[in-house]
Amino acid sequence: MASRGADKTRTMDTVYVGLMGLGVVGSGVASILQEKQSGITSQVGGRVDLRRVLVRDIGKPRTVPLPTGVLTTDPAAILDDPAIAVVIELMGGERPAYDYIQAALRQGKHVITANKEVIAKHGPTLLSLAEANGVAIHFEASVGGGIPLIAPFRESLLANEIAQVHAIINGTTNYILTRMGKDGLDLPEALAEAQALGYAEPDPSYDIEGTDSAYKLAILASLAFHTHVAPDQVYREGIRGLTARDFRYARELGYAIKLLAIARRGAPLRPPGNGGASLAAAGDAVEVRVHPAFIPDDRILARVDGVYNAVEVEGDLTGRIMFYGRGAGSLPTTSAVVSDLIDLAREVRRGMTPRVLPGPKASFPILPMEEVCTRYYVRMAVRDKPGVLAEIARVLGDLQISIASVIQKESNEESQIAEIMLMTHLALERSMQQALRELASLPVVAEIGAVVRVEG
Amino acid sequence: MASRGADKTRTMDTVYVGLMGLGVVGSGVASILQEKQSGITSQVGGRVDLRRVLVRDIGKPRTVPLPTGVLTTDPAAILDDPAIAVVIELMGGERPAYDYIQAALRQGKHVITANKEVIAKHGPTLLSLAEANGVAIHFEASVGGGIPLIAPFRESLLANEIAQVHAIINGTTNYILTRMGKDGLDLPEALAEAQALGYAEPDPSYDIEGTDSAYKLAILASLAFHTHVAPDQVYREGIRGLTARDFRYARELGYAIKLLAIARRGAPLRPPGNGGASLAAAGDAVEVRVHPAFIPDDRILARVDGVYNAVEVEGDLTGRIMFYGRGAGSLPTTSAVVSDLIDLAREVRRGMTPRVLPGPKASFPILPMEEVCTRYYVRMAVRDKPGVLAEIARVLGDLQISIASVIQKESNEESQIAEIMLMTHLALERSMQQALRELASLPVVAEIGAVVRVEG
Repeated sequence: MASRGADKTRTMDTVYVGLMGLGVVGSGVASILQEKQSGITSQVGGRVDLRRVLVRDIGKPRTVPLPTGVLTTDPAAILDDPAIAVVIELMGGERPAYDYIQAALRQGKHVITANKEVIAKHGPTLLSLAEANGVAIHFEASVGGGIPLIAPFRESLLANEIAQVHAIINGTTNYILTRMGKDGLDLPEALAEAQALGYAEPDPSYDIEGTDSAYKLAILASLAFHTHVAPDQVYREGIRGLTARDFRYARELGYAIKLLAIARRGAPLRPPGNGGASLAAAGDAVEVRVHPAFIPDDRILARVDGVYNAVEVEGDLTGRIMFYGRGAGSLPTTSAVVSDLIDLAREVRRGMTPRVLPGPKASFPILPMEEVCTRYYVRMAVRDKPGVLAEIARVLGDLQISIASVIQKESNEESQIAEIMLMTHLALERSMQQALRELASLPVVAEIGAVVRVEG
Repeated sequence: MASRGADKTRTMDTVYVGLMGLGVVGSGVASILQEKQSGITSQVGGRVDLRRVLVRDIGKPRTVPLPTGVLTTDPAAILDDPAIAVVIELMGGERPAYDYIQAALRQGKHVITANKEVIAKHGPTLLSLAEANGVAIHFEASVGGGIPLIAPFRESLLANEIAQVHAIINGTTNYILTRMGKDGLDLPEALAEAQALGYAEPDPSYDIEGTDSAYKLAILASLAFHTHVAPDQVYREGIRGLTARDFRYARELGYAIKLLAIARRGAPLRPPGNGGASLAAAGDAVEVRVHPAFIPDDRILARVDGVYNAVEVEGDLTGRIMFYGRGAGSLPTTSAVVSDLIDLAREVRRGMTPRVLPGPKASFPILPMEEVCTRYYVRMAVRDKPGVLAEIARVLGDLQISIASVIQKESNEESQIAEIMLMTHLALERSMQQALRELASLPVVAEIGAVVRVEG
């Protein structure tokens, strides 16, 4: 069989696979290929054989038993082996994974990857390279773990123009926010617990500052709008500013707080009235932002708790649809990789060119964050004396920001400080930031406690 | 172009389509093909041309303008036209739709259908026929409207063994149950409202007796377990027995009530203890049933309200994932049909054999309903006197049914009748039915008000 190489025009009895990376997911893939071998053979119509596995250290003890000679430290043992038809890249990180994926595609090998950083940054380049070489690149595992997202975008939603995507795509932060919201924990407590449970890394910044979500959102937005959104175009704000108090107030107001990844395409929203009069009439633009957000309780997205993820897509024909499940973890991610492999191997074995995801078709400007228009929740500590609310309302009104509701909590008698929570109508981010600066400088305002955008 | 016919080995510049049926969804498809023509051309890489449309009455006024000569009352104008590569069947009903689909496949035409009855009853036959003729049959629109389900099952979940499916797949009943649960309406009121809004038919029995759900569940179970489940193998119980009172009690107990479509594969569940001792040790079987069910509030499925549908799938690797959206309506269903068409036309145009969904691979016995094991909620009216509960507990205990909790409501002083709600632990359906007969015959029991299974 090996002598046939990766000749894509003939059918193959065995599909040879090279795996790069044998960490948690890599080991999961290797063991599932062993455990489910007979089921996979029957689904593919031929054997899928794990021929070589690239690791850093051959001597390291492994949880999954592999035949002698399978492990290698030399990428060329996979990239230059003509028998290997499919390369699975699970090393993570941008380099050298990106180089290896490119090399594999150039060698006419199909690629499956879970690498969100590489796909978010270089997706379009890789899709073109795959197309030019008549091979496929699959990356279902790069977003949302075992939740099927890529196939739906690639096939089931084709007839739709997608207006927006609202996603909870980081299980670590969602676990933390759920514990804060449901059980009144403060951030440090909830984070420590998530770390103890293995849901958060010792250095949690990649998750809680929104970096992980931004990569995934870049991929989702690119798929949804048939364009390329680079991860550094995504506005990003983490969850560090939230306190248990904000969750309590959110609940009183009928909202949940989630770290939301939002992509929106269309004419930019504008505040009612003349708040946006100074802006030139704009064509379609794309908004991409990751930040904590209030979500109304009656939206099913507000009910996505714990380590679960959900991606809500709004199409012009389907309306709102949502995909929900575990977005991370070894088994769900393994599921996505092995499902991609079975799907691909089935086509490869039949001697067919696997379907290729079309690259970007359109290009839209990215709306700068200051031109985004949304609603806001603001919590502030103010001196408890007459006229305070009027002063605050004047600052906001001068900037065309209108107040939708205000709650004032009883003041602390000793300190003479009261807490005010207000919700605005649609307002321009630029105006809101200006308003916050002016409010902070008012003598009656002791502190701006929290500012959270309100979505949906 | 026409002279090339449906020759699948060559690329085509135009993909010719024949549409059968120009009702609500058919008209939707025809208008979307017009409205989105340039987008579809760009996605497909060539034109998609609606060549003929089969209708019953050519003279009937239409909402969508079609060129003269497109409408026909003769199925042969589509089935025997060699230029037509894809037939879209949207007539509904078993006959003659089933005959036309078979004829189209035999003529080497790809088929797209939204016909749940035909797919539920004859899916495996049609898949084999398609495979034998080297063509594809797509039916995303047959279940869950615009919610992507088939592509995920066909591709994204391939690596999984699916243990269970829990689905809310009838928007009409879900709307009615939501109004009963949230707003205290009784069934006749909620139904009348659903009819006024166009969510329910003048004769609502197809929806509210679970027939529609049973067809869809047969399709989902067949996909999930790679087997064939026929619709008449699905146990079916509608929503007629529910009252607003049951929803109130459910809420007090921490549950929502939904019409649930359940498919489960595995060794049959058995009650704890010796309740199942008389049953022979059984291998894997499939349970398929549609009935109202209590669902715990903390399950996201319990939050699926109004006309929305959701399908929750439990895979051995992914864990629970859920797909959510509008399960019916012209636009969502049109979305599914046109997305299938774009996907198919893209392959057809490239001269490729479109991917074929494999037919059933396995065969499992269907577990008879009396051997199903679940928990139960029972509401009954009893004489308000000492010893009643002991009598009830004795009847249940003799049948190995243990009580998990009991609530007794204050009695009506005049009638001396009290209401008791009890929840059981896992019990065998056969034992429960026997217990209900015995309870009904007890002098102290005035009425068995409602019996609802408790799931999850």
